[in-house]
Amino acid sequence: MKNVTVRFLPSEVEIQIPQGETIIRAAMAAGVHINASCGGEGVCGKCRVIVEKGQVEGGVSEKLSAQDLANGYRLACKATLIEDLTVRVPVESAIDTSALLRKAPRRTATIRQMNLDEIKEKGLFIPPMEKRYLELPPPGVHENLPDVTRLVNYLSLKYDEHGLQVPLSVIRKIPKVFREQDFKVTVTLERPVRPSGKTHIINVQAGDTTAQNFAVAMDIGTTTVYGEIVDLISGKILAEEGRFNGQISYGEDVITRIMYAEKPGGLEKLQQVVVDTINQVLEKIIQRSGVDRENITVLTLAGNTTMTQLLLQVEPRYIRRSPYVPTTRIYPPVRASDLGIDLADHVTALVYPQVSSYVGGDIVSGVMGSGMYLSEKLTLFMDIGTNAEVVIGNKDWMACAACSAGPAFEGGGIEFGMRAAKGAIEDFSIDPETLEPMIVTVGNVRPRGICGSGLIIIVATLFEMGVINNQGKFDRELSTARIRQSNGIYEYVLAYQEQTQIDRDITINEIDIDNLIRAKGAIYSGCKTLLTEVGMSFADVEQIILAGGFGSYVDLEKAMIIGFLPEVPAEKVIYVGNSSLLGARMCALTNSVRQQVVGVTNMMTNFELSETGSYMDNYVASLFLPHTDINDFPRLTKRLEERKAAIARIRGAAAGKKGGE
Amino acid sequence: MKNVTVRFLPSEVEIQIPQGETIIRAAMAAGVHINASCGGEGVCGKCRVIVEKGQVEGGVSEKLSAQDLANGYRLACKATLIEDLTVRVPVESAIDTSALLRKAPRRTATIRQMNLDEIKEKGLFIPPMEKRYLELPPPGVHENLPDVTRLVNYLSLKYDEHGLQVPLSVIRKIPKVFREQDFKVTVTLERPVRPSGKTHIINVQAGDTTAQNFAVAMDIGTTTVYGEIVDLISGKILAEEGRFNGQISYGEDVITRIMYAEKPGGLEKLQQVVVDTINQVLEKIIQRSGVDRENITVLTLAGNTTMTQLLLQVEPRYIRRSPYVPTTRIYPPVRASDLGIDLADHVTALVYPQVSSYVGGDIVSGVMGSGMYLSEKLTLFMDIGTNAEVVIGNKDWMACAACSAGPAFEGGGIEFGMRAAKGAIEDFSIDPETLEPMIVTVGNVRPRGICGSGLIIIVATLFEMGVINNQGKFDRELSTARIRQSNGIYEYVLAYQEQTQIDRDITINEIDIDNLIRAKGAIYSGCKTLLTEVGMSFADVEQIILAGGFGSYVDLEKAMIIGFLPEVPAEKVIYVGNSSLLGARMCALTNSVRQQVVGVTNMMTNFELSETGSYMDNYVASLFLPHTDINDFPRLTKRLEERKAAIARIRGAAAGKKGGE
Repeated sequence: MKNVTVRFLPSEVEIQIPQGETIIRAAMAAGVHINASCGGEGVCGKCRVIVEKGQVEGGVSEKLSAQDLANGYRLACKATLIEDLTVRVPVESAIDTSALLRKAPRRTATIRQMNLDEIKEKGLFIPPMEKRYLELPPPGVHENLPDVTRLVNYLSLKYDEHGLQVPLSVIRKIPKVFREQDFKVTVTLERPVRPSGKTHIINVQAGDTTAQNFAVAMDIGTTTVYGEIVDLISGKILAEEGRFNGQISYGEDVITRIMYAEKPGGLEKLQQVVVDTINQVLEKIIQRSGVDRENITVLTLAGNTTMTQLLLQVEPRYIRRSPYVPTTRIYPPVRASDLGIDLADHVTALVYPQVSSYVGGDIVSGVMGSGMYLSEKLTLFMDIGTNAEVVIGNKDWMACAACSAGPAFEGGGIEFGMRAAKGAIEDFSIDPETLEPMIVTVGNVRPRGICGSGLIIIVATLFEMGVINNQGKFDRELSTARIRQSNGIYEYVLAYQEQTQIDRDITINEIDIDNLIRAKGAIYSGCKTLLTEVGMSFADVEQIILAGGFGSYVDLEKAMIIGFLPEVPAEKVIYVGNSSLLGARMCALTNSVRQQVVGVTNMMTNFELSETGSYMDNYVASLFLPHTDINDFPRLTKRLEERKAAIARIRGAAAGKKGGE
Repeated sequence: MKNVTVRFLPSEVEIQIPQGETIIRAAMAAGVHINASCGGEGVCGKCRVIVEKGQVEGGVSEKLSAQDLANGYRLACKATLIEDLTVRVPVESAIDTSALLRKAPRRTATIRQMNLDEIKEKGLFIPPMEKRYLELPPPGVHENLPDVTRLVNYLSLKYDEHGLQVPLSVIRKIPKVFREQDFKVTVTLERPVRPSGKTHIINVQAGDTTAQNFAVAMDIGTTTVYGEIVDLISGKILAEEGRFNGQISYGEDVITRIMYAEKPGGLEKLQQVVVDTINQVLEKIIQRSGVDRENITVLTLAGNTTMTQLLLQVEPRYIRRSPYVPTTRIYPPVRASDLGIDLADHVTALVYPQVSSYVGGDIVSGVMGSGMYLSEKLTLFMDIGTNAEVVIGNKDWMACAACSAGPAFEGGGIEFGMRAAKGAIEDFSIDPETLEPMIVTVGNVRPRGICGSGLIIIVATLFEMGVINNQGKFDRELSTARIRQSNGIYEYVLAYQEQTQIDRDITINEIDIDNLIRAKGAIYSGCKTLLTEVGMSFADVEQIILAGGFGSYVDLEKAMIIGFLPEVPAEKVIYVGNSSLLGARMCALTNSVRQQVVGVTNMMTNFELSETGSYMDNYVASLFLPHTDINDFPRLTKRLEERKAAIARIRGAAAGKKGGE
């Protein structure tokens, strides 16, 4: 997608943004405030801007008069960028606040996804599944070796393959398959993880099928099961799908699932239910990619400890009881069909190992998939999902912990919290004087709630603009109808009912904010405790890898403002998305991951934060915005102070103006 | 059992024989003829002997008058030996034939069965399954390693065990079992076949069960499935059982079974049927030995190629079609329960590899179990069952072939043929003058038929005594009612109806004899062809190992007389019984067998006799008693000629006497 340049007046901010985006999103990214309440659906009519130079597509609305249109007015949320543009934001107030309060253009983390070419370049490509087409000499009266011996001898002679193992399932297929196309066959070779291991012949097919060789990689999340079909020759993802884990009906979180599994038949039920979900995902991606199920040669899976134990039908009872003992660290390869997974008999399911009861295979997978395990740099890996896990270290050592963050970052425990689905408020700005909001939603429709990344932005912005204090309490002095009490709890109205898709005003209240503060505090203090335990500090961190499902990007500055991330230069932060799925894919693509995963897992020292002395102090100190110890946030503190002064001037001026009127 | 010495008069033959045997069996073993028709049941009253010195138990009968008894007469078949004895056989003829025709005392093969102590002495004992009792430190808040990691670490630290593999089935058991007796557990370790392999933890049990460690060894025969429970600590057999293979209902021999397997659902049916038989055998031996099924740690199986493929549900279609290609040589270990075998999930079934379509795992098992694979001596191994297979070679090389002998040695194709069950004629002698028989049956009951070893003795004796010629045809000149024609076929009456358990006379006819000649000819010529192919002759053979189910011993001289065995000194012949079962047991007892079996199997060069030039000539030359080329039987020829002259004198004298009367 080509970028265009949008120049906003009067703030004179310029931003490069892809064609096809809306003006309001460009403004949001540029840090330019435009009042907007309906999330981008075009119904509130507030986001009027004047296009002074260049053309846009759309943005015409009944909310604008003929005169307005003639003057270049458009609705910013409906006007799509097609070329370079100059846009004037009508400043309703006499004071040009936007220039003063101008933010740096949003900094998001660099998105990184490994690909096959990169792996190959690094010499890490050890294909785990290879197909080979063979034209075997047929037997005769003077040479009537057994079929399997014929195959094994031929591979030895022609391809220097030795110690080949042939499982019974393949032996059973061979007599028929060999004779279907006169001993012309394709064999699938499963390579050993270690050079000392043996190659297994896991399938035989009549004729030449070498061009079709696929893997399925899956992330078994507590909430969602993601799957993708990977072409093992090109490394491309051919189809992907995410579905809610059917186990949700038996409990929202891992603890309630474990409790269900403890009931008679519960474990079997939960196993079956997640396999049903897996099979639904499989069905979809197989259908969509058009691959032949028979040509899928491997399945890789990653999930947290509870999800993994439930999938493998391993009693999870002791995960939730002190001293929190999972059953195993490493799982052997398992036949997928033995688990009830609807793949051919020859497909092995490779399941990521786990470190502890709350640092599971999804985290190990993330460490592998993100490349952290290869990095020289001291890295802080943070996976924020239903729970939050953090890993600190590099290729030589790692320490990890699970933080009892709760699901606030996924919208849990927030009154209007929701997943990052259509209608979720994902971006927010506030007019420092009028305190009117600018909201943008996923899908540009009227809002239904607030997603995780939106929540961070809202709280950070409210704090930045002095609407809430460092304890997350609203400034009781501010005079705006949007701040009000409801059942004795202070809240800010993000969108009035008529501009939402629901039957109530959408608000954020002090309880929501407190939950977010606790969540970010748990994560921040978890990281800090880990660092302290290994004798380091945030200043030593050379790289942060963010993983998880809370939106494809996080506004880094906002994340630092609330003290969720430590204050580091934005270029140090990398976003890898669903790193669990990424690691599963990597494991399907190259054995180099499998070769190293056991060593990496064993290297990951687990800290039970509740048993670590300094944790509670760190946690309590983190329950402020950004933190009790503002020395950890020097740049931010400086900027916040400047901003505070500016806001005071603006509000003072406004008050003066009002007073003078 | 103590031996006693029995001295027979007037022949002055002495024999050492165990207490408790009958006089008639002592006479049979000593080569002393006593007329006897009822197999030892005591009803014909013919076997009258005079006990001249010493006491016997029993032998008193209504067939004997008070006067007879007072004179020391007893029935030889009912008189049991308790001390040294002198017995006179009343000679009804004036000519003392017994002295003249005196045979050498019977020579049977040395019986050899390996045992655990012998294996240990030879340094070949590598226990495949070991149990170890562990008292693991329970987890706590400051050390909460996963259960499996705890186990693996402990074994590493305490027992220097590394690279341990834990299958999912064991992982699933661990959480519960560990906590049953406070982390005191017994683990079962499956040792790798090769030192480079890995040890698997195949079971965990609460508490200390190290004293219970058992294996099941099985021979899957076309006719019979034999199984035994072996104590892996003492090496003792705790129980054994044989049952007809349930597949018999679907075909008597392998060819008809294969044909059945080719029908839709046929293979699955036959698999299920043999597994049913296996489970019945298991049930019996488990019950009888009183072992806990859970403490059976391994199952070893040997069978011919067809039986093996049917058990493993591998399409046997090409076994019976030229060029007779089996599916594989080597089978991987398979979980017994996956085959439907009623053993715990952790039990691996180890299946003997096979050489070719007709030299199967039972033969490889025999080669291993008999110790032939370790022998320096040039050995001829012969397994005579429903079919006959021969192996020639030693520890450095082997050649093998299957002989189309047919089931004559198991009583098949013989009018009154039967298995060596109660009532089977197993021993036979003939009065050279009167041609009256002396027959002894299994169980000393009235005869029902003839078993394999009995058949060899009958035919050899008839030939020795000039009753049949070297083509197996009766001497038409002999005048006895016992030789007669029935439907134009000459036969000899072994027992008249009233002395049998059946409703007909029991006979042996020329067709029976011809079938035996063809059978022995196939085997002899098979051996000869193999030897010729490797540039050797029978003279080079240093040892013969006889295996198979045709009785626990074969009269070696008789076997040589019919030309079934080559003429070798009796001390060169070893009998190993069911060598397939023996090999299965050895494989359960020590990994040294498994370590070498693949190498041995690969070393065994298979000859398809039908494709080997010299075979047909050898076969045709073998269709004589003992053989066309009597140079192969020099001692025998000399003795037969002497005997011929003696018989001629006796018959001449008898005829003269008759003529003179």
